[in-house]
Amino acid sequence: MEIIVQTKEMQRRAEQRRREGMIIAFVPTMGYLHEGHLSLMREGRKRGDCLVASIFVNPTQFGPAEDYNRYPRDLKQDLKLIQRVGVDICFTPSVAEMYPDGFQTFVEVERVTQSLCGISRPHHFRGVTSVVAKLFNIVKPHLAFFGQKDYQQLIAIKRMVKDLNMDIEVVGMPTIREPDGLAMSSRNAFLNQKKRKEAARLYRSLVKGKELFAQGERSAATILQEVRRIIEEEKSADIDYVKICDAHTLEDIEEIKGEAIIALAVKMGKTRLIDNIILKEE
Amino acid sequence: MEIIVQTKEMQRRAEQRRREGMIIAFVPTMGYLHEGHLSLMREGRKRGDCLVASIFVNPTQFGPAEDYNRYPRDLKQDLKLIQRVGVDICFTPSVAEMYPDGFQTFVEVERVTQSLCGISRPHHFRGVTSVVAKLFNIVKPHLAFFGQKDYQQLIAIKRMVKDLNMDIEVVGMPTIREPDGLAMSSRNAFLNQKKRKEAARLYRSLVKGKELFAQGERSAATILQEVRRIIEEEKSADIDYVKICDAHTLEDIEEIKGEAIIALAVKMGKTRLIDNIILKEE
Repeated sequence: MEIIVQTKEMQRRAEQRRREGMIIAFVPTMGYLHEGHLSLMREGRKRGDCLVASIFVNPTQFGPAEDYNRYPRDLKQDLKLIQRVGVDICFTPSVAEMYPDGFQTFVEVERVTQSLCGISRPHHFRGVTSVVAKLFNIVKPHLAFFGQKDYQQLIAIKRMVKDLNMDIEVVGMPTIREPDGLAMSSRNAFLNQKKRKEAARLYRSLVKGKELFAQGERSAATILQEVRRIIEEEKSADIDYVKICDAHTLEDIEEIKGEAIIALAVKMGKTRLIDNIILKEE
Repeated sequence: MEIIVQTKEMQRRAEQRRREGMIIAFVPTMGYLHEGHLSLMREGRKRGDCLVASIFVNPTQFGPAEDYNRYPRDLKQDLKLIQRVGVDICFTPSVAEMYPDGFQTFVEVERVTQSLCGISRPHHFRGVTSVVAKLFNIVKPHLAFFGQKDYQQLIAIKRMVKDLNMDIEVVGMPTIREPDGLAMSSRNAFLNQKKRKEAARLYRSLVKGKELFAQGERSAATILQEVRRIIEEEKSADIDYVKICDAHTLEDIEEIKGEAIIALAVKMGKTRLIDNIILKEE
Protein backbone atom coordinates (compact mmCIF):
# COMPACT_ATOMS: atom_id res chain seq x y z
CA MET A 1 0.00 0.00 0.00
CA GLU A 2 1.20 3.46 -0.94
CA ILE A 3 0.75 6.41 1.43
CA ILE A 4 0.44 9.83 -0.22
CA VAL A 5 0.34 13.13 1.69
CA GLN A 6 0.67 15.71 -1.12
CA THR A 7 -2.33 16.70 -3.24
CA LYS A 8 -0.24 17.16 -6.41
CA GLU A 9 1.29 13.71 -6.07
CA MET A 10 -2.13 12.12 -5.51
CA GLN A 11 -3.42 13.86 -8.66
CA ARG A 12 -0.48 12.65 -10.73
CA ARG A 13 -0.99 9.09 -9.54
CA ALA A 14 -4.75 9.23 -10.17
CA GLU A 15 -4.24 10.65 -13.66
CA GLN A 16 -1.76 7.87 -14.39
CA ARG A 17 -4.21 5.19 -13.26
CA ARG A 18 -7.01 6.68 -15.34
CA ARG A 19 -4.75 6.82 -18.39
CA GLU A 20 -4.05 3.12 -17.85
CA GLY A 21 -7.81 2.56 -18.09
CA MET A 22 -8.23 1.67 -14.42
CA ILE A 23 -11.46 2.33 -12.48
CA ILE A 24 -10.65 4.34 -9.35
CA ALA A 25 -12.83 3.55 -6.32
CA PHE A 26 -12.66 6.01 -3.43
CA VAL A 27 -13.66 5.89 0.24
CA PRO A 28 -13.17 9.24 2.04
CA THR A 29 -12.99 8.93 5.85
CA MET A 30 -12.03 10.89 8.95
CA GLY A 31 -10.17 7.85 10.27
CA TYR A 32 -10.65 5.95 13.56
CA LEU A 33 -12.00 3.28 11.30
CA HIS A 34 -14.68 0.75 12.16
CA GLU A 35 -16.55 -1.97 10.30
CA GLY A 36 -18.76 0.66 8.64
CA HIS A 37 -15.77 2.18 6.87
CA LEU A 38 -14.28 -1.21 6.09
CA SER A 39 -17.51 -2.40 4.47
CA LEU A 40 -17.29 0.58 2.09
CA MET A 41 -13.70 -0.33 1.26
CA ARG A 42 -14.57 -3.97 0.62
CA GLU A 43 -17.24 -2.85 -1.86
CA GLY A 44 -14.74 -0.44 -3.42
CA ARG A 45 -12.25 -3.29 -3.71
CA LYS A 46 -14.82 -5.35 -5.62
CA ARG A 47 -15.86 -2.58 -7.99
CA GLY A 48 -12.59 -0.71 -8.64
CA ASP A 49 -9.19 -1.55 -10.11
CA CYS A 50 -7.46 0.98 -7.89
CA LEU A 51 -8.86 1.52 -4.38
CA VAL A 52 -8.07 4.82 -2.67
CA ALA A 53 -9.02 5.62 0.94
CA SER A 54 -8.47 9.04 2.48
CA ILE A 55 -7.99 9.75 6.16
CA PHE A 56 -8.46 13.41 7.02
CA VAL A 57 -10.23 14.94 10.00
CA ASN A 58 -11.71 17.97 8.26
CA PRO A 59 -11.77 21.06 10.49
CA THR A 60 -14.26 23.03 8.34
CA GLN A 61 -17.12 20.64 9.08
CA PHE A 62 -16.91 21.11 12.86
CA GLY A 63 -18.57 24.06 14.58
CA PRO A 64 -16.52 26.18 17.01
CA ALA A 65 -18.12 24.46 20.04
CA GLU A 66 -17.84 20.97 18.52
CA ASP A 67 -15.41 18.11 19.00
CA TYR A 68 -12.75 18.73 16.30
CA ASN A 69 -9.86 18.67 18.74
CA ARG A 70 -11.01 15.66 20.70
CA TYR A 71 -12.28 13.72 17.65
CA PRO A 72 -10.65 10.27 18.01
CA ARG A 73 -7.54 9.60 15.90
CA ASP A 74 -5.39 6.48 15.49
CA LEU A 75 -3.53 6.57 12.18
CA LYS A 76 -1.30 3.60 12.96
CA GLN A 77 -4.23 1.30 13.64
CA ASP A 78 -6.16 2.75 10.64
CA LEU A 79 -3.28 1.96 8.27
CA LYS A 80 -3.20 -1.63 9.49
CA LEU A 81 -6.93 -2.03 8.92
CA ILE A 82 -7.03 -0.53 5.44
CA GLN A 83 -4.02 -2.51 4.30
CA ARG A 84 -5.84 -5.65 5.36
CA VAL A 85 -8.94 -4.84 3.23
CA GLY A 86 -6.73 -4.24 0.20
CA VAL A 87 -6.54 -0.46 -0.16
CA ASP A 88 -3.97 0.47 -2.83
CA ILE A 89 -3.42 4.12 -1.92
CA CYS A 90 -4.03 5.88 1.39
CA PHE A 91 -4.27 9.66 0.96
CA THR A 92 -3.68 11.37 4.28
CA PRO A 93 -2.91 15.07 3.85
CA SER A 94 -2.18 17.63 6.59
CA VAL A 95 -4.58 20.47 7.39
CA ALA A 96 -2.05 22.94 5.91
CA GLU A 97 -1.92 20.93 2.68
CA MET A 98 -5.72 21.02 2.36
CA TYR A 99 -6.29 24.56 3.63
CA PRO A 100 -3.27 26.73 2.80
CA ASP A 101 -3.29 30.44 3.66
CA GLY A 102 -5.80 32.41 1.62
CA PHE A 103 -8.31 29.54 1.29
CA GLN A 104 -11.78 31.04 0.77
CA THR A 105 -13.90 28.80 -1.48
CA PHE A 106 -16.88 26.72 -0.41
CA VAL A 107 -19.38 24.46 -2.13
CA GLU A 108 -22.83 24.86 -0.70
CA VAL A 109 -25.80 22.60 -1.33
CA GLU A 110 -28.77 24.65 -0.25
CA ARG A 111 -32.13 23.03 0.48
CA VAL A 112 -31.30 19.46 1.51
CA THR A 113 -28.75 20.70 4.07
CA GLN A 114 -31.16 23.02 5.87
CA SER A 115 -33.28 20.50 7.76
CA LEU A 116 -32.29 17.80 10.31
CA CYS A 117 -28.62 18.19 11.34
CA GLY A 118 -28.40 21.44 9.35
CA ILE A 119 -30.35 23.22 12.08
CA SER A 120 -28.09 22.46 15.04
CA ARG A 121 -24.90 22.31 12.92
CA PRO A 122 -25.29 25.33 10.62
CA HIS A 123 -21.98 25.18 8.70
CA HIS A 124 -21.42 21.42 8.93
CA PHE A 125 -22.60 20.39 5.47
CA ARG A 126 -20.87 23.30 3.76
CA GLY A 127 -17.64 21.94 5.28
CA VAL A 128 -18.50 18.39 4.18
CA THR A 129 -19.40 19.20 0.58
CA SER A 130 -16.40 21.51 0.20
CA VAL A 131 -13.89 18.96 1.44
CA VAL A 132 -15.49 16.16 -0.59
CA ALA A 133 -15.35 18.37 -3.72
CA LYS A 134 -11.65 18.93 -3.01
CA LEU A 135 -11.01 15.22 -2.41
CA PHE A 136 -12.85 14.31 -5.62
CA ASN A 137 -10.64 16.72 -7.57
CA ILE A 138 -7.53 15.27 -5.94
CA VAL A 139 -8.36 11.55 -6.12
CA LYS A 140 -10.30 11.72 -9.44
CA PRO A 141 -12.45 8.67 -8.69
CA HIS A 142 -14.99 6.97 -10.93
CA LEU A 143 -16.85 5.65 -7.87
CA ALA A 144 -17.14 7.01 -4.32
CA PHE A 145 -18.65 5.18 -1.35
CA PHE A 146 -20.52 6.68 1.60
CA GLY A 147 -22.46 5.10 4.46
CA GLN A 148 -26.21 5.54 4.85
CA LYS A 149 -25.72 6.16 8.57
CA ASP A 150 -24.85 9.74 7.56
CA TYR A 151 -27.95 9.88 5.40
CA GLN A 152 -28.21 13.65 5.01
CA GLN A 153 -24.52 13.80 4.08
CA LEU A 154 -25.10 11.14 1.43
CA ILE A 155 -28.04 13.07 -0.05
CA ALA A 156 -26.06 16.35 -0.01
CA ILE A 157 -23.12 14.74 -1.79
CA LYS A 158 -25.35 13.10 -4.38
CA ARG A 159 -26.99 16.47 -4.97
CA MET A 160 -23.62 18.23 -5.31
CA VAL A 161 -22.35 15.63 -7.76
CA LYS A 162 -25.47 15.97 -9.90
CA ASP A 163 -25.70 19.77 -9.73
CA LEU A 164 -22.02 20.40 -10.46
CA ASN A 165 -21.86 17.65 -13.14
CA MET A 166 -19.12 15.74 -11.36
CA ASP A 167 -18.56 12.62 -13.44
CA ILE A 168 -18.62 10.29 -10.43
CA GLU A 169 -20.99 7.55 -9.27
CA VAL A 170 -21.86 8.05 -5.61
CA VAL A 171 -22.69 4.73 -3.96
CA GLY A 172 -24.62 4.69 -0.66
CA MET A 173 -24.01 1.60 1.48
CA PRO A 174 -26.07 0.12 4.35
CA THR A 175 -25.37 1.15 7.93
CA ILE A 176 -23.25 -1.39 9.80
CA ARG A 177 -24.44 -2.04 13.35
CA GLU A 178 -23.10 -3.47 16.58
CA PRO A 179 -24.78 -6.74 17.72
CA ASP A 180 -27.25 -4.73 19.85
CA GLY A 181 -28.17 -2.56 16.86
CA LEU A 182 -26.21 0.62 17.64
CA ALA A 183 -25.00 2.16 14.36
CA MET A 184 -21.20 2.03 14.15
CA SER A 185 -19.60 5.44 14.52
CA SER A 186 -16.17 6.69 15.49
CA ARG A 187 -17.91 8.79 18.14
CA ASN A 188 -19.18 5.66 19.92
CA ALA A 189 -15.67 5.58 21.45
CA PHE A 190 -16.76 8.57 23.59
CA LEU A 191 -19.52 6.57 25.33
CA ASN A 192 -18.87 5.09 28.74
CA GLN A 193 -20.13 1.57 29.40
CA LYS A 194 -23.48 2.71 30.79
CA LYS A 195 -24.20 5.22 28.00
CA ARG A 196 -23.02 2.70 25.42
CA LYS A 197 -25.63 0.24 26.64
CA GLU A 198 -28.39 2.85 26.70
CA ALA A 199 -27.49 3.96 23.17
CA ALA A 200 -28.90 0.73 21.70
CA ARG A 201 -32.31 2.24 22.49
CA LEU A 202 -31.98 4.56 19.48
CA TYR A 203 -32.05 1.77 16.96
CA ARG A 204 -34.78 -0.06 18.90
CA SER A 205 -36.92 3.06 18.60
CA LEU A 206 -36.35 3.20 14.82
CA VAL A 207 -37.18 -0.48 14.42
CA LYS A 208 -40.40 0.08 16.35
CA GLY A 209 -41.25 2.98 14.04
CA LYS A 210 -40.62 0.82 11.01
CA GLU A 211 -42.84 -1.92 12.48
CA LEU A 212 -45.71 0.53 12.84
CA PHE A 213 -45.18 1.55 9.22
CA ALA A 214 -45.14 -2.13 8.14
CA GLN A 215 -48.44 -2.59 9.99
CA GLY A 216 -49.96 0.12 7.81
CA GLU A 217 -49.51 3.28 9.87
CA ARG A 218 -48.92 6.26 7.55
CA SER A 219 -49.23 9.20 9.94
CA ALA A 220 -45.78 10.63 10.68
CA ALA A 221 -47.01 12.13 13.96
CA THR A 222 -48.27 8.76 15.26
CA ILE A 223 -45.04 6.96 14.43
CA LEU A 224 -42.86 9.78 15.79
CA GLN A 225 -44.79 9.81 19.06
CA GLU A 226 -43.93 6.15 19.62
CA VAL A 227 -40.28 6.57 18.57
CA ARG A 228 -39.86 9.54 20.92
CA ARG A 229 -41.57 7.66 23.77
CA ILE A 230 -39.03 4.84 23.55
CA ILE A 231 -36.08 7.25 23.51
CA GLU A 232 -37.46 9.38 26.33
CA GLU A 233 -37.83 6.33 28.63
CA GLU A 234 -34.12 6.88 29.09
CA LYS A 235 -33.95 10.09 31.15
CA SER A 236 -30.40 11.03 30.12
CA ALA A 237 -31.19 10.91 26.39
CA ASP A 238 -31.41 14.49 25.07
CA ILE A 239 -33.26 14.57 21.74
CA ASP A 240 -31.99 17.09 19.17
CA TYR A 241 -34.55 15.91 16.59
CA VAL A 242 -36.63 12.91 15.58
CA LYS A 243 -38.22 13.47 12.19
CA ILE A 244 -39.90 11.69 9.33
CA CYS A 245 -38.98 13.19 5.97
CA ASP A 246 -39.08 12.53 2.28
CA ALA A 247 -36.07 10.32 1.52
CA HIS A 248 -34.91 12.53 -1.37
CA THR A 249 -35.77 16.15 -0.52
CA LEU A 250 -35.44 15.65 3.29
CA GLU A 251 -38.50 17.83 3.77
CA ASP A 252 -40.78 16.99 6.71
CA ILE A 253 -43.85 15.03 5.73
CA GLU A 254 -47.12 14.46 7.57
CA GLU A 255 -48.35 11.43 5.70
CA ILE A 256 -45.89 8.83 4.47
CA LYS A 257 -46.02 8.25 0.73
CA GLY A 258 -43.25 6.92 -1.50
CA GLU A 259 -39.86 6.57 0.18
CA ALA A 260 -39.32 8.23 3.57
CA ILE A 261 -36.88 8.06 6.46
CA ILE A 262 -37.12 8.31 10.19
CA ALA A 263 -34.02 10.27 11.18
CA LEU A 264 -32.82 11.17 14.66
CA ALA A 265 -30.04 12.94 16.50
CA VAL A 266 -29.78 12.37 20.25
CA LYS A 267 -27.20 13.45 22.79
CA MET A 268 -26.18 10.70 25.19
CA GLY A 269 -24.28 12.77 27.73
CA LYS A 270 -21.84 14.87 25.70
CA THR A 271 -21.91 12.54 22.71
CA ARG A 272 -24.26 13.37 19.86
CA LEU A 273 -25.36 10.26 17.94
CA ILE A 274 -27.33 10.08 14.71
CA ASP A 275 -29.18 7.22 13.07
CA ASN A 276 -31.97 6.61 10.57
CA ILE A 277 -34.13 3.94 9.03
CA ILE A 278 -35.76 3.84 5.63
CA LEU A 279 -39.53 3.39 5.22
CA LYS A 280 -40.45 1.98 1.85
CA GLU A 281 -43.42 0.06 0.65
CA GLU A 282 -42.40 -3.43 -0.45
CA MET B 1 -16.40 21.01 -35.92
CA GLU B 2 -18.65 18.99 -33.65
CA ILE B 3 -21.56 20.63 -31.81
CA ILE B 4 -22.57 19.01 -28.52
CA VAL B 5 -25.60 20.03 -26.46
CA GLN B 6 -25.78 17.25 -23.84
CA THR B 7 -23.55 17.29 -20.76
CA LYS B 8 -23.18 13.48 -20.67
CA GLU B 9 -22.10 13.34 -24.30
CA MET B 10 -19.56 16.13 -23.76
CA GLN B 11 -18.14 14.22 -20.77
CA ARG B 12 -17.85 11.01 -22.76
CA ARG B 13 -16.07 12.81 -25.58
CA ALA B 14 -13.71 14.62 -23.15
CA GLU B 15 -12.89 11.37 -21.33
CA GLN B 16 -12.15 9.71 -24.65
CA ARG B 17 -9.79 12.54 -25.69
CA ARG B 18 -7.98 12.40 -22.35
CA ARG B 19 -7.59 8.63 -22.64
CA GLU B 20 -6.00 9.20 -26.05
CA GLY B 21 -3.44 11.41 -24.29
CA MET B 22 -4.76 14.65 -25.79
CA ILE B 23 -4.47 18.03 -24.02
CA ILE B 24 -7.92 19.64 -23.84
CA ALA B 25 -7.94 23.45 -24.10
CA PHE B 26 -11.18 25.19 -23.14
CA VAL B 27 -12.63 28.65 -23.74
CA PRO B 28 -15.97 29.22 -21.98
CA THR B 29 -18.02 32.10 -23.39
CA MET B 30 -21.51 33.59 -23.33
CA GLY B 31 -21.40 33.95 -27.12
CA TYR B 32 -21.84 37.07 -29.25
CA LEU B 33 -18.18 36.60 -29.90
CA HIS B 34 -15.62 39.32 -30.61
CA GLU B 35 -11.87 39.46 -31.10
CA GLY B 36 -11.34 39.11 -27.36
CA HIS B 37 -12.93 35.66 -27.34
CA LEU B 38 -11.22 34.69 -30.58
CA SER B 39 -7.80 35.61 -29.20
CA LEU B 40 -8.41 33.16 -26.33
CA MET B 41 -9.35 30.45 -28.82
CA ARG B 42 -6.27 31.08 -30.96
CA GLU B 43 -4.10 30.63 -27.86
CA GLY B 44 -6.07 27.50 -26.95
CA ARG B 45 -5.54 26.19 -30.47
CA LYS B 46 -1.76 26.61 -30.03
CA ARG B 47 -1.58 24.98 -26.62
CA GLY B 48 -4.14 22.18 -26.84
CA ASP B 49 -4.67 19.08 -28.97
CA CYS B 50 -8.44 19.33 -28.64
CA LEU B 51 -9.98 22.83 -28.47
CA VAL B 52 -13.40 23.14 -26.87
CA ALA B 53 -15.42 26.38 -26.76
CA SER B 54 -18.69 26.69 -24.90
CA ILE B 55 -21.47 29.13 -25.69
CA PHE B 56 -23.94 29.51 -22.84
CA VAL B 57 -25.60 32.67 -21.53
CA ASN B 58 -25.65 31.76 -17.85
CA PRO B 59 -28.78 33.01 -16.07
CA THR B 60 -27.40 32.57 -12.52
CA GLN B 61 -24.79 35.28 -12.96
CA PHE B 62 -27.33 37.98 -13.82
CA GLY B 63 -29.19 39.88 -11.11
CA PRO B 64 -33.00 40.16 -11.35
CA ALA B 65 -32.75 43.75 -12.65
CA GLU B 66 -29.91 42.97 -15.04
CA ASP B 67 -29.77 42.30 -18.77
CA TYR B 68 -30.08 38.49 -19.03
CA ASN B 69 -33.02 38.60 -21.41
CA ARG B 70 -31.64 41.30 -23.67
CA TYR B 71 -28.03 40.02 -23.55
CA PRO B 72 -27.01 39.84 -27.24
CA ARG B 73 -27.12 36.42 -28.90
CA ASP B 74 -26.15 35.26 -32.40
CA LEU B 75 -25.35 31.55 -32.40
CA LYS B 76 -25.18 31.23 -36.19
CA GLN B 77 -22.55 33.94 -36.51
CA ASP B 78 -20.69 32.57 -33.43
CA LEU B 79 -20.45 29.10 -34.97
CA LYS B 80 -18.96 30.56 -38.14
CA LEU B 81 -16.36 32.48 -36.19
CA ILE B 82 -15.26 29.62 -33.95
CA GLN B 83 -15.06 27.19 -36.84
CA ARG B 84 -12.72 29.64 -38.55
CA VAL B 85 -10.31 29.75 -35.55
CA GLY B 86 -10.19 25.95 -35.46
CA VAL B 87 -12.41 24.97 -32.53
CA ASP B 88 -12.90 21.17 -32.49
CA ILE B 89 -15.96 20.98 -30.26
CA CYS B 90 -18.58 23.62 -29.51
CA PHE B 91 -20.52 22.85 -26.33
CA THR B 92 -23.78 24.77 -26.30
CA PRO B 93 -26.25 23.36 -23.76
CA SER B 94 -29.74 24.65 -23.00
CA VAL B 95 -30.62 26.29 -19.68
CA ALA B 96 -32.71 23.20 -18.77
CA GLU B 97 -29.71 20.93 -19.45
CA MET B 98 -27.49 23.00 -17.15
CA TYR B 99 -30.07 23.78 -14.46
CA PRO B 100 -32.61 20.94 -14.24
CA ASP B 101 -35.37 21.04 -11.62
CA GLY B 102 -34.03 20.69 -8.10
CA PHE B 103 -30.72 22.43 -8.80
CA GLN B 104 -29.41 23.92 -5.54
CA THR B 105 -25.60 23.84 -5.41
CA PHE B 106 -23.29 26.84 -5.65
CA VAL B 107 -19.56 27.40 -5.48
CA GLU B 108 -18.72 30.56 -3.63
CA VAL B 109 -15.32 32.26 -3.52
CA GLU B 110 -15.57 34.59 -0.59
CA ARG B 111 -13.13 37.47 -0.15
CA VAL B 112 -11.97 38.33 -3.69
CA THR B 113 -15.58 38.56 -4.90
CA GLN B 114 -16.70 41.06 -2.27
CA SER B 115 -15.04 44.23 -3.57
CA LEU B 116 -15.40 46.03 -6.95
CA CYS B 117 -18.23 44.49 -9.03
CA GLY B 118 -19.21 42.30 -6.06
CA ILE B 119 -20.77 45.33 -4.38
CA SER B 120 -23.23 46.35 -7.11
CA ARG B 121 -23.69 42.76 -8.41
CA PRO B 122 -24.02 40.75 -5.18
CA HIS B 123 -24.66 37.25 -6.62
CA HIS B 124 -22.82 37.68 -9.89
CA PHE B 125 -19.57 35.92 -9.02
CA ARG B 126 -21.35 33.06 -7.28
CA GLY B 127 -23.13 32.46 -10.57
CA VAL B 128 -19.87 32.70 -12.50
CA THR B 129 -17.84 30.35 -10.32
CA SER B 130 -20.70 27.83 -10.12
CA VAL B 131 -21.21 27.66 -13.87
CA VAL B 132 -17.46 27.52 -14.53
CA ALA B 133 -17.13 24.66 -12.00
CA LYS B 134 -19.91 22.85 -13.87
CA LEU B 135 -18.34 23.50 -17.26
CA PHE B 136 -14.95 22.31 -15.98
CA ASN B 137 -16.54 19.05 -14.81
CA ILE B 138 -18.29 18.63 -18.15
CA VAL B 139 -15.44 19.59 -20.51
CA LYS B 140 -12.60 18.18 -18.32
CA PRO B 141 -9.96 20.58 -19.68
CA HIS B 142 -6.25 20.68 -18.90
CA LEU B 143 -6.14 24.38 -19.76
CA ALA B 144 -8.81 27.09 -19.58
CA PHE B 145 -8.55 30.60 -21.01
CA PHE B 146 -10.09 33.80 -19.66
CA GLY B 147 -9.66 37.46 -20.62
CA GLN B 148 -8.10 39.99 -18.26
CA LYS B 149 -10.85 42.47 -19.15
CA ASP B 150 -12.96 40.59 -16.58
CA TYR B 151 -10.13 40.81 -14.10
CA GLN B 152 -12.10 40.06 -10.92
CA GLN B 153 -13.68 37.06 -12.62
CA LEU B 154 -10.22 35.79 -13.58
CA ILE B 155 -8.96 36.14 -9.99
CA ALA B 156 -12.09 34.44 -8.58
CA ILE B 157 -11.72 31.51 -10.98
CA LYS B 158 -8.00 31.15 -10.23
CA ARG B 159 -8.85 31.16 -6.52
CA MET B 160 -11.60 28.54 -6.97
CA VAL B 161 -9.31 26.27 -8.98
CA LYS B 162 -6.60 26.50 -6.34
CA ASP B 163 -8.90 26.16 -3.33
CA LEU B 164 -10.91 23.22 -4.71
CA ASN B 165 -7.79 21.50 -6.14
CA MET B 166 -9.13 21.48 -9.68
CA ASP B 167 -6.33 20.04 -11.80
CA ILE B 168 -6.58 22.77 -14.44
CA GLU B 169 -4.23 25.54 -15.55
CA VAL B 170 -6.13 28.84 -15.75
CA VAL B 171 -4.57 31.15 -18.32
CA GLY B 172 -5.33 34.90 -18.22
CA MET B 173 -4.99 36.66 -21.57
CA PRO B 174 -4.57 40.38 -22.39
CA THR B 175 -7.60 42.55 -23.04
CA ILE B 176 -8.25 43.09 -26.73
CA ARG B 177 -9.22 46.68 -27.60
CA GLU B 178 -10.87 48.59 -30.40
CA PRO B 179 -8.60 51.00 -32.32
CA ASP B 180 -9.66 53.86 -29.99
CA GLY B 181 -8.81 51.78 -26.90
CA LEU B 182 -12.29 50.65 -25.81
CA ALA B 183 -12.06 47.14 -24.34
CA MET B 184 -13.94 44.66 -26.51
CA SER B 185 -17.13 43.42 -24.89
CA SER B 186 -20.35 41.86 -26.13
CA ARG B 187 -22.16 44.66 -24.30
CA ASN B 188 -20.54 47.31 -26.55
CA ALA B 189 -23.29 46.35 -29.02
CA PHE B 190 -25.73 48.19 -26.73
CA LEU B 191 -23.96 51.57 -27.22
CA ASN B 192 -25.36 54.03 -29.72
CA GLN B 193 -22.86 55.86 -31.91
CA LYS B 194 -22.50 58.82 -29.54
CA LYS B 195 -22.05 56.71 -26.40
CA ARG B 196 -19.71 54.40 -28.26
CA LYS B 197 -17.44 57.32 -29.04
CA GLU B 198 -17.58 58.65 -25.48
CA ALA B 199 -16.74 55.20 -24.08
CA ALA B 200 -13.16 55.44 -25.37
CA ARG B 201 -12.66 57.89 -22.52
CA LEU B 202 -12.57 55.01 -20.02
CA TYR B 203 -9.38 53.52 -21.40
CA ARG B 204 -7.85 57.00 -21.85
CA SER B 205 -8.43 57.60 -18.14
CA LEU B 206 -6.71 54.31 -17.25
CA VAL B 207 -3.75 55.09 -19.51
CA LYS B 208 -3.41 58.48 -17.83
CA GLY B 209 -3.43 56.73 -14.43
CA LYS B 210 -0.74 54.37 -15.57
CA GLU B 211 1.36 57.29 -16.86
CA LEU B 212 1.23 58.95 -13.46
CA PHE B 213 2.33 55.66 -11.90
CA ALA B 214 5.18 55.39 -14.45
CA GLN B 215 6.25 58.91 -13.49
CA GLY B 216 6.64 57.75 -9.90
CA GLU B 217 3.28 58.56 -8.32
CA ARG B 218 2.44 55.95 -5.67
CA SER B 219 -0.57 57.51 -3.92
CA ALA B 220 -3.75 55.74 -4.99
CA ALA B 221 -5.85 58.81 -4.10
CA THR B 222 -3.81 61.11 -6.34
CA ILE B 223 -4.01 58.75 -9.32
CA LEU B 224 -7.71 58.03 -8.79
CA GLN B 225 -8.52 61.74 -8.63
CA GLU B 226 -7.05 62.23 -12.10
CA VAL B 227 -8.74 59.08 -13.52
CA ARG B 228 -12.12 60.18 -12.17
CA ARG B 229 -11.61 63.74 -13.46
CA ILE B 230 -11.15 62.45 -17.01
CA ILE B 231 -14.24 60.23 -16.82
CA GLU B 232 -16.38 62.93 -15.21
CA GLU B 233 -15.59 65.40 -18.03
CA GLU B 234 -18.24 63.38 -19.83
CA LYS B 235 -21.48 64.36 -18.07
CA SER B 236 -23.42 61.24 -19.03
CA ALA B 237 -20.81 58.85 -17.57
CA ASP B 238 -22.15 57.43 -14.31
CA ILE B 239 -19.30 55.97 -12.24
CA ASP B 240 -20.09 52.78 -10.27
CA TYR B 241 -16.51 52.56 -8.97
CA VAL B 242 -12.95 53.54 -9.83
CA LYS B 243 -10.50 51.81 -7.51
CA ILE B 244 -6.88 50.91 -7.10
CA CYS B 245 -6.43 47.51 -5.47
CA ASP B 246 -3.88 44.83 -4.85
CA ALA B 247 -3.73 42.74 -8.04
CA HIS B 248 -4.10 39.44 -6.14
CA THR B 249 -6.33 40.06 -3.11
CA LEU B 250 -8.35 42.87 -4.80
CA GLU B 251 -8.28 44.79 -1.52
CA ASP B 252 -8.17 48.59 -1.75
CA ILE B 253 -4.71 50.04 -1.24
CA GLU B 254 -3.63 53.56 -0.38
CA GLU B 255 -0.03 53.33 -1.46
CA ILE B 256 0.91 51.29 -4.51
CA LYS B 257 3.45 48.57 -3.80
CA GLY B 258 4.01 45.37 -5.74
CA GLU B 259 1.41 44.63 -8.39
CA ALA B 260 -1.81 46.65 -8.41
CA ILE B 261 -4.69 47.40 -10.78
CA ILE B 262 -6.81 50.40 -11.54
CA ALA B 263 -10.28 48.95 -12.06
CA LEU B 264 -13.45 50.75 -13.05
CA ALA B 265 -17.11 50.19 -13.79
CA VAL B 266 -19.02 53.01 -15.46
CA LYS B 267 -22.53 53.21 -16.84
CA MET B 268 -22.76 54.90 -20.22
CA GLY B 269 -26.49 55.37 -20.45
CA LYS B 270 -28.00 51.97 -19.60
CA THR B 271 -24.83 50.04 -20.51
CA ARG B 272 -22.44 49.17 -17.72
CA LEU B 273 -18.85 48.84 -18.93
CA ILE B 274 -15.83 47.58 -17.00
CA ASP B 275 -12.13 47.92 -17.69
CA ASN B 276 -8.82 47.80 -15.85
CA ILE B 277 -5.11 48.36 -16.26
CA ILE B 278 -2.23 46.76 -14.40
CA LEU B 279 0.34 48.82 -12.51
CA LYS B 280 3.62 46.99 -12.08
CA GLU B 281 7.13 48.21 -11.54
CA GLU B 282 9.33 47.26 -14.47
